[in-house]
Amino acid sequence: MLNELEQVLPADIEKRSFEIITEELGDKILIPGTEPIVKRCIHTSADFDYADNLAFSDGVVERALDAIRNGASIVTDTQMAKAGINKKRLAQYGGEVHCFMSDEDVAQEAKENGTTRAAACMDKAAVMSRENQQEHGLIFAIGNAPTALVRLYELINEGNIKPELIIAAPVGFVNVVQSKELILTLKDIPYIVARGRKGGSNIAACICNSLLYML
Amino acid sequence: MLNELEQVLPADIEKRSFEIITEELGDKILIPGTEPIVKRCIHTSADFDYADNLAFSDGVVERALDAIRNGASIVTDTQMAKAGINKKRLAQYGGEVHCFMSDEDVAQEAKENGTTRAAACMDKAAVMSRENQQEHGLIFAIGNAPTALVRLYELINEGNIKPELIIAAPVGFVNVVQSKELILTLKDIPYIVARGRKGGSNIAACICNSLLYML
Repeated sequence: MLNELEQVLPADIEKRSFEIITEELGDKILIPGTEPIVKRCIHTSADFDYADNLAFSDGVVERALDAIRNGASIVTDTQMAKAGINKKRLAQYGGEVHCFMSDEDVAQEAKENGTTRAAACMDKAAVMSRENQQEHGLIFAIGNAPTALVRLYELINEGNIKPELIIAAPVGFVNVVQSKELILTLKDIPYIVARGRKGGSNIAACICNSLLYML
Repeated sequence: MLNELEQVLPADIEKRSFEIITEELGDKILIPGTEPIVKRCIHTSADFDYADNLAFSDGVVERALDAIRNGASIVTDTQMAKAGINKKRLAQYGGEVHCFMSDEDVAQEAKENGTTRAAACMDKAAVMSRENQQEHGLIFAIGNAPTALVRLYELINEGNIKPELIIAAPVGFVNVVQSKELILTLKDIPYIVARGRKGGSNIAACICNSLLYML
């Protein structure tokens, strides 16, 4: 059995994986400039659906890279997504990754408002954003909670937050599709949306990483 | 757009999700006792392929639950998987979650041996396991690195470790399928294997959680 293994040096495994993905994508047409993101989502999931279900707002990649270069921080809705993001690479540009899901005040606010902790996290991010108004922007990497996206949509429409980028990749069955379609209706907010039911903390994190690796 | 959202209380979202999954599985036949694991993998990925690609060794669920009850700890090959496991629940039975991927000695050993850090982590786990011989067992939750599975297979055959359970769920394109098939050949080692290319840290973590939630 062991002799059926492909001989690939540790340092070359990722390169070889991307070669296989490129090969299997064949003449599939991807939006120019988004290829590294699409391929990394496939790399992370082994799911070629991501060749079809990622939606990008106009010029989002350049705007996202500019935001990171300018020191934007990333807010996630799970500790898993936070764990998966290359925080060292982000720190080179001055940004850090925040996840408020385990914070006591968030749990308290969610309970009081009858909402989810993920939604309360978005309120906390909006407060942080206002307090640092002259500072750097925020990128939202949402891989789990549709309620986070819905609350973010409301906060944007109320003028309480203006994200540099929304990565909308919750996974699941209840309001997941609808919450992502909501983000697609936003004007002037850059987005990368994994349409449909699929997504996840791993996908949200890998989209962040694919941007970081483009820099 | 907001009025297209399904009205579900925060506490009921997971329950409603599992109802939808059960409904869509229809009369699909699952191995008795494994349903909560299969459904949670679908819940985590929105991917019904998991109804077909999970392989279970005989009696694995009962053996895994016994191991957790007896204080088994979990070793992961990514910080993401560690972040995703319900550590509070595990701690109730005395177990904890280890991920050695960021350890200096692991990086050093991988470099010296020309292997991956994930493989070196398995060696470190084997040492830990030997040192605590009279203590509790180890569960391996591998969601990323085929090289970790291959090394684990070697360590088992050399008699250097005897896991209570192997969750084999690496994702990807290079030796992923082969490494999982290798685990399927093991005798007397309980396993849950996500056959094929799919898997991930999220899947490895959710299989651990589904076991914890059965207790």
